[in-house]
Amino acid sequence: MTRISTGITDLDKKLQGGFPEGECILITGEPGTGKTIIGIQFLYNACKEGKRCALIATEETPEKIIIHGKALGFDLEPFVNTNQLSMVRFLEIRAFDIGEGTNQKYIEIDDINNLLHMMQEDIDVIVLDNMGTFSIGVDLKEFRDKVDALAYLLSKQNRTSLIMMDATAHELTHRITEYSTYGTIKLTTKENPYTGKMERYMYMPKMRGTKVTLELINYDITEEGIKLLSSKSNK
Amino acid sequence: MTRISTGITDLDKKLQGGFPEGECILITGEPGTGKTIIGIQFLYNACKEGKRCALIATEETPEKIIIHGKALGFDLEPFVNTNQLSMVRFLEIRAFDIGEGTNQKYIEIDDINNLLHMMQEDIDVIVLDNMGTFSIGVDLKEFRDKVDALAYLLSKQNRTSLIMMDATAHELTHRITEYSTYGTIKLTTKENPYTGKMERYMYMPKMRGTKVTLELINYDITEEGIKLLSSKSNK
Amino acid sequence: MTRISTGITDLDKKLQGGFPEGECILITGEPGTGKTIIGIQFLYNACKEGKRCALIATEETPEKIIIHGKALGFDLEPFVNTNQLSMVRFLEIRAFDIGEGTNQKYIEIDDINNLLHMMQEDIDVIVLDNMGTFSIGVDLKEFRDKVDALAYLLSKQNRTSLIMMDATAHELTHRITEYSTYGTIKLTTKENPYTGKMERYMYMPKMRGTKVTLELINYDITEEGIKLLSSKSNK
Amino acid sequence: MTRISTGITDLDKKLQGGFPEGECILITGEPGTGKTIIGIQFLYNACKEGKRCALIATEETPEKIIIHGKALGFDLEPFVNTNQLSMVRFLEIRAFDIGEGTNQKYIEIDDINNLLHMMQEDIDVIVLDNMGTFSIGVDLKEFRDKVDALAYLLSKQNRTSLIMMDATAHELTHRITEYSTYGTIKLTTKENPYTGKMERYMYMPKMRGTKVTLELINYDITEEGIKLLSSKSNK
Amino acid sequence: MTRISTGITDLDKKLQGGFPEGECILITGEPGTGKTIIGIQFLYNACKEGKRCALIATEETPEKIIIHGKALGFDLEPFVNTNQLSMVRFLEIRAFDIGEGTNQKYIEIDDINNLLHMMQEDIDVIVLDNMGTFSIGVDLKEFRDKVDALAYLLSKQNRTSLIMMDATAHELTHRITEYSTYGTIKLTTKENPYTGKMERYMYMPKMRGTKVTLELINYDITEEGIKLLSSKSNK
Amino acid sequence: MTRISTGITDLDKKLQGGFPEGECILITGEPGTGKTIIGIQFLYNACKEGKRCALIATEETPEKIIIHGKALGFDLEPFVNTNQLSMVRFLEIRAFDIGEGTNQKYIEIDDINNLLHMMQEDIDVIVLDNMGTFSIGVDLKEFRDKVDALAYLLSKQNRTSLIMMDATAHELTHRITEYSTYGTIKLTTKENPYTGKMERYMYMPKMRGTKVTLELINYDITEEGIKLLSSKSNK
Repeated sequence: MTRISTGITDLDKKLQGGFPEGECILITGEPGTGKTIIGIQFLYNACKEGKRCALIATEETPEKIIIHGKALGFDLEPFVNTNQLSMVRFLEIRAFDIGEGTNQKYIEIDDINNLLHMMQEDIDVIVLDNMGTFSIGVDLKEFRDKVDALAYLLSKQNRTSLIMMDATAHELTHRITEYSTYGTIKLTTKENPYTGKMERYMYMPKMRGTKVTLELINYDITEEGIKLLSSKSNK
Repeated sequence: MTRISTGITDLDKKLQGGFPEGECILITGEPGTGKTIIGIQFLYNACKEGKRCALIATEETPEKIIIHGKALGFDLEPFVNTNQLSMVRFLEIRAFDIGEGTNQKYIEIDDINNLLHMMQEDIDVIVLDNMGTFSIGVDLKEFRDKVDALAYLLSKQNRTSLIMMDATAHELTHRITEYSTYGTIKLTTKENPYTGKMERYMYMPKMRGTKVTLELINYDITEEGIKLLSSKSNK
Repeated sequence: MTRISTGITDLDKKLQGGFPEGECILITGEPGTGKTIIGIQFLYNACKEGKRCALIATEETPEKIIIHGKALGFDLEPFVNTNQLSMVRFLEIRAFDIGEGTNQKYIEIDDINNLLHMMQEDIDVIVLDNMGTFSIGVDLKEFRDKVDALAYLLSKQNRTSLIMMDATAHELTHRITEYSTYGTIKLTTKENPYTGKMERYMYMPKMRGTKVTLELINYDITEEGIKLLSSKSNK
Repeated sequence: MTRISTGITDLDKKLQGGFPEGECILITGEPGTGKTIIGIQFLYNACKEGKRCALIATEETPEKIIIHGKALGFDLEPFVNTNQLSMVRFLEIRAFDIGEGTNQKYIEIDDINNLLHMMQEDIDVIVLDNMGTFSIGVDLKEFRDKVDALAYLLSKQNRTSLIMMDATAHELTHRITEYSTYGTIKLTTKENPYTGKMERYMYMPKMRGTKVTLELINYDITEEGIKLLSSKSNK
Repeated sequence: MTRISTGITDLDKKLQGGFPEGECILITGEPGTGKTIIGIQFLYNACKEGKRCALIATEETPEKIIIHGKALGFDLEPFVNTNQLSMVRFLEIRAFDIGEGTNQKYIEIDDINNLLHMMQEDIDVIVLDNMGTFSIGVDLKEFRDKVDALAYLLSKQNRTSLIMMDATAHELTHRITEYSTYGTIKLTTKENPYTGKMERYMYMPKMRGTKVTLELINYDITEEGIKLLSSKSNK
Repeated sequence: MTRISTGITDLDKKLQGGFPEGECILITGEPGTGKTIIGIQFLYNACKEGKRCALIATEETPEKIIIHGKALGFDLEPFVNTNQLSMVRFLEIRAFDIGEGTNQKYIEIDDINNLLHMMQEDIDVIVLDNMGTFSIGVDLKEFRDKVDALAYLLSKQNRTSLIMMDATAHELTHRITEYSTYGTIKLTTKENPYTGKMERYMYMPKMRGTKVTLELINYDITEEGIKLLSSKSNK
């Protein structure tokens, strides 16, 4: 199986080289756990390797994401300027619709599917940050069918994709997105029982075609992005 | 009682030779617990023993499942080519229906029943992976009646069958499918209290006509499929 | 108070001779806890003692139940052949109704009441396995009224009866059936805190006119049926 | 404050002589905790003391209750025969209504209120066993208003009353009946942490005009009715 | 900030002299925790100090409350007779409405607001016991708006007020009343971990303009009313 | 990134100088945890530094907030008098609407958006205390869209803003506001496991562009406002 680097060296080692190419991976977590940063590092690295990429941003403006990346040392701006990285502005469309009040039908998961059909074929890497806004208030059966269809389409088009989903939306949809994707990374915060401090962990319950352990991987959000912390099982 | 091998030698020993022939068994678990792999190993072994089989795949394409099996050393492709293993493509039908938007009536549990009525009589082994998609949004009373009817039909036709059901759908339907099937295997992940590591366990609360213990059986998903781990109670 | 043997010698000792004659007892438990086996043992013993009996089977065919009993050494077939034991085939009626789709009105709790009115007077013992299918989707107030009426009717007709009810349906109906019956036996599985193993227990929170203790009674499902395990409090 | 004996000598001691006369007390508990026995002992004693009493029985026939009392040594039959104890047959009316299917409007809490208005003035003691059947499916606001009105009416008529309410109905109505009554006795079963055995306890969170402790009072259901068990705090 | 005595000397010490004058305080607790007694002691003291007071009683008759107070040594009757204490009979109105069945529109929170508009200006102290009856079945948004308006009105009229609210209603309204009031006192019962006995505690999570600690204050309901128990932190 | 002081010196140190300028921060907590005081200290300091500010007060009158601030040593009155601090009186409008009953359409989140559009451009700092009243009874999907739009608008207008939200409303909206804001501070009360006393803590799960630790920061509400308590990790 071909791999595509996650942009985080230590995480690549845990994944036998990176995310499985052409597959769809779910990243889920509470606010502040670094979902967007994982997307930024992944896109930055893929761009550097010459892949064409797209970021579908539903909760932030591309400008904010670029500033966010720059602060961490991952400058996406040159790739945006050369059009190697396409920025799909969904927040602004949502905010306009809401503000104007003229358009009752907000962006839906179907719009993502339509977008994928229209998207240029040479775009290999897609980050959708985040899908949660499409799930609230949608009938669960319909959401499951549509996520299955979205994952199926992404896989058929052979695009490597990360779908970010906030923990609230993930719980409200009874975690069913995990059944549709090829793999899942969960970002959590929990108390270290020995030190009594809150620490960040990632957990990979599912990663097809990849020998992953079920360990809780301690990580930190540093001024240079996500860093896995060395532990006994890491060495 | 005649037995049919599960395709996992150590599991056969726990089950006095394998699954009860002609009966319907439920396999349930969270994403990444190996439900699909259990189905692959069971089908691979049954094909090797010359039985005619069918896989009803609602969440993945047959191609993906074949790749998945090959990677683990269980190559289903020759059996598909000789038509000994029939692949029922339900994901594609679902995805087409959803994508086109022309067909509001997605595949339902009734379609499984109809399929069983039309299926050739010499198909002895059926794997349905997974039934969860049929349960969401269905009235609980109706779901229970239909699952009872499905289990009754499978048993009357004397087909040995595995029904996979994702844990989310199983919980949302209040675990009532367990009352309709002849046996149940639950796949779970829990922390080993001595090592603090997450480990995989299977648990068999019900297996009629079979002397099973209520132990938690530790297993692993290896590069050669499901392996039971030796434990005191295994020896 | 006259007693009628449960068919389990050790359980009779706990109940001052057996179930109270002419009363209605609830047996509830998860799948695989032995509800059906308790029914088989009770019927087998009552038939041997010359009582006329009826089994209302809503989830299995009589044939399966007879096979189940034979495997445990309780052969009900001769009693069925001499008509001493009547088998009411409710699963087949349910499955036919569901399969045909011509009859929207499935079997309901009212049908049990009607059946009891039509049933021959000399039938002294009734096992209903299980009532859960009648409870799902029914308004709680209506269910309570109907269960009260059913228990009242059984008692007025002076029939000793066991009502099996699966734990899911029992929970979904907020355990209200326990208020209508003369006694309740709960079958559960829990971890033995000393050995860490899962074990089976029965618990009798209510048994009118009978001096029962509130102990958890350890039991096992053996190849010869239900066996109570000796414990300090058993001796 | 005048007291009226509970019929349980040790309980009278805890209550400064007995229940407060002319007030309404709630007794709540799971099945098998002895609610009905408390009612029987209270009525038996009140009859012996020459008071006129009424038992409104919604879940059992008077005959069954009389048999129940006799077995425990509290023979209510003579008092029924002399009309000192009136038995209101609500179970039979409910069962008839349900069985006939001609009367959609089952007995409601309003019928209790109407009954109280019609009841002879010299009836001083009332036991209602149990009110739970009137609460299910009733709007919570309406139930609260009606229970307040019922408690107000009972108190205005100066009748000492026990209202039994099963724990399921009490929980489903969010325990609001406790706010309307003058006092509450809760009957529970819990594990004794020292012996590991299940034991019965009563707890009195509220008893106006009475100095009660918040202790858990251990009791048993013996062949002679409810007995409080001696404990350090009892002596 | 001016203070007005709570009528409980030890509690006054905890509150820098008493409740903040002209503000609205919430008292919440389960049945039997002494909400009504706090109201009685507060009114008795305020009357003695010459303040004009009103008690809005929704769950008990004024007569019962007067008897309750007398038994504890707080005789409100003389103040009622001189009209210094007005008793608003809301229970009787509610019970009449319910009993007659002619008036579907029970008393609502709006009636409290109307009452406040009509009430004489020189009434400085108001106790509303309890507001729970107005909250059940009311839309949460509407309840919040109305409670905000009620608290705003009481504060604008510069009346010192205690609003009692039963714990059930408080939980069912998601504790939102606490956001509208100037302060909150919660009355609870919990097990003392050292003695294993149930004890009473009050807790003050919010008291604006007052330096309160977050301690659990142990108290008892004695024959002379509420008494705080001395503890290390009390001395 | 430019910082703007929180008005709490020790908190500024934890935030590399203060809140990120031009961004929107969420403050959430139970009643009595000091949300309003944080707003007062922030506004007081910003006014002193010459910034133009606005306080949108939905639950209290400006007069009360000014009294509250004065008692703590943060006198906002001079800034209100010179119009440097604008007070938006939303409580009075709400209370009037409710009291009159003529206006069914209470203030909604849209009114905040409209207000922002009309507000003078030189207002740099906004405190909204609190948004909870706008969330109850609003469809979750709609609330999420509107909060995203509000946060987007505030950020586009480059106004530094604090949105207070009570814990009840935050939980009822499944904490989704945290996904829309740039950072979140949670105010909680919990038992110190060593002393057994209740203590106040703040926790910052998310603060973009800022190196924050995940520690629980112990604080107190003193007579001079919020004070962080020194701890090992503070030094």
